Amino acid sequence: MNYQSLKERVLRANLALVEAGLVVLTWGNASGADRDAGVMAIKPSGIPYKLLRAEDIVVLSIKTGEVVEGSARPSSDTATHLYREFPTIGGVMHTHSTCGTSFAQAMRDIPCFGTTHADNFHGPIPVTRAMTDAEINQDYELNTGRVIVECFKKRGINPEQAPGVLVASHGPFAWGATVESAVENAIVLEFSATMALNSLLLSPGLSPISQTLLDKHFLRKHGPKATYGQK
Amino acid sequence: MNYQSLKERVLRANLALVEAGLVVLTWGNASGADRDAGVMAIKPSGIPYKLLRAEDIVVLSIKTGEVVEGSARPSSDTATHLYREFPTIGGVMHTHSTCGTSFAQAMRDIPCFGTTHADNFHGPIPVTRAMTDAEINQDYELNTGRVIVECFKKRGINPEQAPGVLVASHGPFAWGATVESAVENAIVLEFSATMALNSLLLSPGLSPISQTLLDKHFLRKHGPKATYGQK
Amino acid sequence: MNYQSLKERVLRANLALVEAGLVVLTWGNASGADRDAGVMAIKPSGIPYKLLRAEDIVVLSIKTGEVVEGSARPSSDTATHLYREFPTIGGVMHTHSTCGTSFAQAMRDIPCFGTTHADNFHGPIPVTRAMTDAEINQDYELNTGRVIVECFKKRGINPEQAPGVLVASHGPFAWGATVESAVENAIVLEFSATMALNSLLLSPGLSPISQTLLDKHFLRKHGPKATYGQK
Amino acid sequence: MNYQSLKERVLRANLALVEAGLVVLTWGNASGADRDAGVMAIKPSGIPYKLLRAEDIVVLSIKTGEVVEGSARPSSDTATHLYREFPTIGGVMHTHSTCGTSFAQAMRDIPCFGTTHADNFHGPIPVTRAMTDAEINQDYELNTGRVIVECFKKRGINPEQAPGVLVASHGPFAWGATVESAVENAIVLEFSATMALNSLLLSPGLSPISQTLLDKHFLRKHGPKATYGQK
Repeated sequence: MNYQSLKERVLRANLALVEAGLVVLTWGNASGADRDAGVMAIKPSGIPYKLLRAEDIVVLSIKTGEVVEGSARPSSDTATHLYREFPTIGGVMHTHSTCGTSFAQAMRDIPCFGTTHADNFHGPIPVTRAMTDAEINQDYELNTGRVIVECFKKRGINPEQAPGVLVASHGPFAWGATVESAVENAIVLEFSATMALNSLLLSPGLSPISQTLLDKHFLRKHGPKATYGQK
Repeated sequence: MNYQSLKERVLRANLALVEAGLVVLTWGNASGADRDAGVMAIKPSGIPYKLLRAEDIVVLSIKTGEVVEGSARPSSDTATHLYREFPTIGGVMHTHSTCGTSFAQAMRDIPCFGTTHADNFHGPIPVTRAMTDAEINQDYELNTGRVIVECFKKRGINPEQAPGVLVASHGPFAWGATVESAVENAIVLEFSATMALNSLLLSPGLSPISQTLLDKHFLRKHGPKATYGQK
Repeated sequence: MNYQSLKERVLRANLALVEAGLVVLTWGNASGADRDAGVMAIKPSGIPYKLLRAEDIVVLSIKTGEVVEGSARPSSDTATHLYREFPTIGGVMHTHSTCGTSFAQAMRDIPCFGTTHADNFHGPIPVTRAMTDAEINQDYELNTGRVIVECFKKRGINPEQAPGVLVASHGPFAWGATVESAVENAIVLEFSATMALNSLLLSPGLSPISQTLLDKHFLRKHGPKATYGQK
Repeated sequence: MNYQSLKERVLRANLALVEAGLVVLTWGNASGADRDAGVMAIKPSGIPYKLLRAEDIVVLSIKTGEVVEGSARPSSDTATHLYREFPTIGGVMHTHSTCGTSFAQAMRDIPCFGTTHADNFHGPIPVTRAMTDAEINQDYELNTGRVIVECFKKRGINPEQAPGVLVASHGPFAWGATVESAVENAIVLEFSATMALNSLLLSPGLSPISQTLLDKHFLRKHGPKATYGQK
């Protein structure tokens, strides 16, 4: 078995996070799925980005979480859970990007204050509830994925329309139909967070943009009326 | 017909926006006009800046908006409208620069708090009114240009004296007599926005600079008493 | 006698501080200890980082503070005191990093608002009390080390669990079991400070994360239940 | 007559301002004096920094302000006035650095909140009063120098102890005994402004550091008890 192409795309996504300034030290990771093969490929934990090679990328079964190819056992339970529960996503990025993480720490959604945000997220980027002590102490990685999914279900948010989340007191996850679109969404999440912080400093009670403007920007790029894969 | 020189200037302007850190991903665009030929040249949508070549730049009729040279149909209705309504401008930049966009999202003018701003803008950089649902749903790009022009007419602002605007909930546009001066104005807009945000944090009720100081700085560089084209 | 390997590690640590943007001009320094030999090696004062070579690094006795190898007499009394009082540390970094120094100037602890911080610091990063006039006027460098140690003793903080401190009105020190981990802790301190400032702007009365989440992140990497030396 | 060495030092100072991120576009300038020859050398206005060569630097008489060598007539009345009134300074930097200019726009001194600031400035970095309409309309450049000098005289500040100022609504000037120390002071001014802004956000009513700590840091580097020229 060999997943060379997937590993190379996942490698490039990891390096793109570094180039975009979204990760520090060895934090964060990028992963991508091959849905036909039922696998995901992910950066192993703790390897410095500048030493990372395609052959270091670990391939796991989405269903069981077991390693299919590669020698390391990465922190992948959160991402694996997301691939299982959000069946249309093909890439997941986890970063500690500065302003996204600041909103996560402040336990606030990133409101949609402008069209930059609306082009990729059809509404606020939600923050999860805090995890319980029991959830933290047992199966922490997996439970992180579970509170993400719970957040989207309880608030009735479609993960294709809001391709990212802030895990409370932790940081951002972003996803997309492909590895490459997930990278883009991680960049947009951080940029939107930066401008939302500035906007709130300038106008503390600021309201989100209108539903009409939100729809205009998001739906011309996504959904049945859009030309998929073109921007 | 061939517009090689115009295309190369527009290419350089697009790359200058990237170098100055004013654009992210494929957002934003630079355009320039050849008034004698009645055309404008603009970056096509969605092409990554690092792949952009002079031959990708699209040339359109300012009057009709129809493509004269080039194979793509760019998002150009806003810029085309500005070239029609502001007959002395030769270049238009659209960016999503961080602090300019933050003011646009907060729906606040950028007040003139200092001489850096006053050297290029003879007063506040205005923010447009929010667009109506009807304006958003039909001819959105063109209506964006219309609310810009309306903003300048209603408030009695001369576009040569305030060569930039913030489209509410969207982001900055800047222009100039030439493509090159439009790039400079886009840079000054963002830098002024950054310092205006800081100034407001330091002094929340801060007043704009005096008319005398504003005139001194702007008029020594622009208008009948200035030496045009020299700084 | 020769400490070539230690000097090279200390040189690399100094350059890593520059690369991470934690020092400006010739401020700050990195040092490392060879506990078996009873010595520490430290950057001499005032040499520009870009000219620094391994042979410029000065080696001193931890016990007496006297120079063992090298021609300069560096500002090392603070670090020497820390190596004496915190016997398990192998590296000390002193920086004037922007946000860490801002918290030091504001005389506020950096609260633990998220898992980025909790991965390396098991609680707040404390700020020392202000030094008395007498402490400033006599043996200032040494007294700086003393107020750091006093801060940890009075508040019952274990320096292995909180490997960094803010000296009031001055700036950050960070340490670690090795020179390399001290560099990492200096980076995490600054990054945590940046996000803590943003978090407080977004949520002024924000509480630190729960003890359970704090323990989860810190203890899986440090202490008896962790796999030492692996991240 | 030839001032090759002075011109090269002034060229390097101008490029150092760019490298340190203190100037944008063609704003700002560095100058240096040869006191024995009674001249100063300064960057001409409006030349892009990347095209600047030593032979472009203009040399003027400090006493009369007349050009001694060089073909351009630079904006030099402010700097010339400072060299005349502050007879021990050998270099003057004018920047539009982001946070220094923000304090100038907010018309606030930069208080001394920490030792980073105190190492180079023996107290607050003062802001001038606003200029009158008459001062702006006639001899504006020269009057800028005059309000700087007035600020130091009225407040009893020694320009050797506070080697920089904020011109209200305009931006920073920094100076020093040499061209090179003036560059350093311009860097410290901006860095101190950045951290002072952060410190005020964290602790709005923050007091400056004690006189004892201020003296300790400044006087060990400057004045009769310091070793001049060494840091």
